Amino acid sequence: MERSGSEIEQKLRELGHGLPQPAAPLANYVPAVASGGLLFVSGQLPFGPDGKLSPTHVGKVGAGVTEAEAFRAAALSALNCLAQAKVFLGDLGRIRRCVRLSGFVNCAENFTALAGVMNGASDLIGGALGEAGPHARSAVGAAQLPLGACIEVEAIFEIAP
Amino acid sequence: MERSGSEIEQKLRELGHGLPQPAAPLANYVPAVASGGLLFVSGQLPFGPDGKLSPTHVGKVGAGVTEAEAFRAAALSALNCLAQAKVFLGDLGRIRRCVRLSGFVNCAENFTALAGVMNGASDLIGGALGEAGPHARSAVGAAQLPLGACIEVEAIFEIAP
Amino acid sequence: MERSGSEIEQKLRELGHGLPQPAAPLANYVPAVASGGLLFVSGQLPFGPDGKLSPTHVGKVGAGVTEAEAFRAAALSALNCLAQAKVFLGDLGRIRRCVRLSGFVNCAENFTALAGVMNGASDLIGGALGEAGPHARSAVGAAQLPLGACIEVEAIFEIAP
Repeated sequence: MERSGSEIEQKLRELGHGLPQPAAPLANYVPAVASGGLLFVSGQLPFGPDGKLSPTHVGKVGAGVTEAEAFRAAALSALNCLAQAKVFLGDLGRIRRCVRLSGFVNCAENFTALAGVMNGASDLIGGALGEAGPHARSAVGAAQLPLGACIEVEAIFEIAP
Repeated sequence: MERSGSEIEQKLRELGHGLPQPAAPLANYVPAVASGGLLFVSGQLPFGPDGKLSPTHVGKVGAGVTEAEAFRAAALSALNCLAQAKVFLGDLGRIRRCVRLSGFVNCAENFTALAGVMNGASDLIGGALGEAGPHARSAVGAAQLPLGACIEVEAIFEIAP
Repeated sequence: MERSGSEIEQKLRELGHGLPQPAAPLANYVPAVASGGLLFVSGQLPFGPDGKLSPTHVGKVGAGVTEAEAFRAAALSALNCLAQAKVFLGDLGRIRRCVRLSGFVNCAENFTALAGVMNGASDLIGGALGEAGPHARSAVGAAQLPLGACIEVEAIFEIAP
């Protein structure tokens, strides 16, 4: 059973998260595009509820950023995906399911625990969306990321017409 | 003409491949999700028929892992994509075509023969699916991959309803 | 209002770009695949109008390749996405909108201005497609790219039936 938008936001609050105020759209690219029943959300950095990137979430995982901090950053990136979806859809209840998350981890060259980091994003989506949460996923080590963020997560959601 | 599921599996056997027993689904993410006629398969590592990652497929291509071994690993990753598709679909004959493969190669910083490595995945899919095999593709060098694997391949297939 | 194919090509000429002659399809993978109203274009390197990779577009951004050159290379990669779309569609006027661009930047380990580089691709698509141009986007640092190119861009377009 899909959750309503208010149930999803209530569940997020229970998990200790409010939806951040997401970054505004720019000229030639936008935070999200819907096509054919899918919502493609741009890669999201782990901006906090204040819209800022915490210094603890800047740098390479395994060299400066700990795995535990990167897990929390992954959750924040996923939360920003939901925040962008809400701006686009108006109501998170229009999400039928999460289809795929792609996670790019800015990591030291010998850091291989990428799946554990990405669980931060998958667990957040699972906690928020319930039965509509389980998704296909990739976790990949990046050489760098915008602003030096330790993770970037992009999402595809299936949405109601 | 699309091949039936048994024809695809017969073709794989002729190419020397049995379908591996793929990793079981986890709690908050899953190996594959279908939406709107597309099957999104999670990034697959080059697990062998025994479900294990060979030590020859762990490390950076161009520094420890040879290009020839990486080519074989790419084929195994693609084979795991098919194995996950079979678990999801029940019958590989429901695949109408391979739409896209994304290949991430854990590579030394000066290793540029990424297309040659990714051909291992594209050739496997082409050999298995025949006319339904040709796909869009990207090949990208990763800074690291889960478990230190030398390659990860994710797939999108078009499927029959 | 969507632009016609000739309007798009006229706009590109005004911006100083002709459509390059794109690379021919290979055996087991192809430059573009359409499925369910979406056109998936393979990752494109910044080949110039002569079909060649300029030496100024080979290497790592922030170490050998300047940010300004990488911006130009991003535009060329996006232009090659359009060129592949034209070969596939026959007429760029069949593009309803750009859905997503994924940009992989071959970068030095401390180069974080990836968004600025990717603007070269987004601006080109915006300039060419007008109202149909704004897209979801990711910008990720790669450890290497095919042929040592400084950038690779893949695209998803929504197309008319």
